[in-house]
Amino acid sequence: MIINELKFNDQGLIPAIIQDEENNQVLMLAYMNRESIQMTLQTKKCTYFSRSRQKLWLKGETSGHFQQVKSVSYDCDSDTLLILVRQIGVACHTGERSCFYRQIPLEEG
Amino acid sequence: MIINELKFNDQGLIPAIIQDEENNQVLMLAYMNRESIQMTLQTKKCTYFSRSRQKLWLKGETSGHFQQVKSVSYDCDSDTLLILVRQIGVACHTGERSCFYRQIPLEEG
Repeated sequence: MIINELKFNDQGLIPAIIQDEENNQVLMLAYMNRESIQMTLQTKKCTYFSRSRQKLWLKGETSGHFQQVKSVSYDCDSDTLLILVRQIGVACHTGERSCFYRQIPLEEG
Repeated sequence: MIINELKFNDQGLIPAIIQDEENNQVLMLAYMNRESIQMTLQTKKCTYFSRSRQKLWLKGETSGHFQQVKSVSYDCDSDTLLILVRQIGVACHTGERSCFYRQIPLEEG
């Protein structure tokens, strides 16, 4: 099981980058624990661990904006996941397709 | 200053997703502290905070594989960055272009 090779942080979580498989847009970053990874693999729908609510969170359960899993990769350090999804509706709770809809001007540096 | 709106974790860090501006490939995830964000904006080259070495890390300083910053976005929770870069050479220390070169079979679930 590759899951056993993953490195979780001291809260038992690993960050997951969610990318739209259709156009490669980065949609969001969320956190998974071991159980949510297993749920995600089994159901082919992204399930996260909500840090604010401290429980599993099936993305789309209330909004209908499910994320259908197409592939799951992990990085060289085994401490980050990259998940390609087919996004139903939008990823962000604000109604934007991606959570990354605001820019920091390079001139701020 | 938008930097003042960002939410850093209890170690003073914020994750940054690094994406290739040419083909939208996700290259890596690294962590930044406030100082490394300012360095990144000022120099237009990605500078991270190395958690293992506990110091600033100018990506490419030893390898020559610099990342030229094209844009910096932040997410709806203000706790993740997305940085589009022009990648010189490769992003991963293994020689792979992206750190996400290994897959978890969906059948593992």
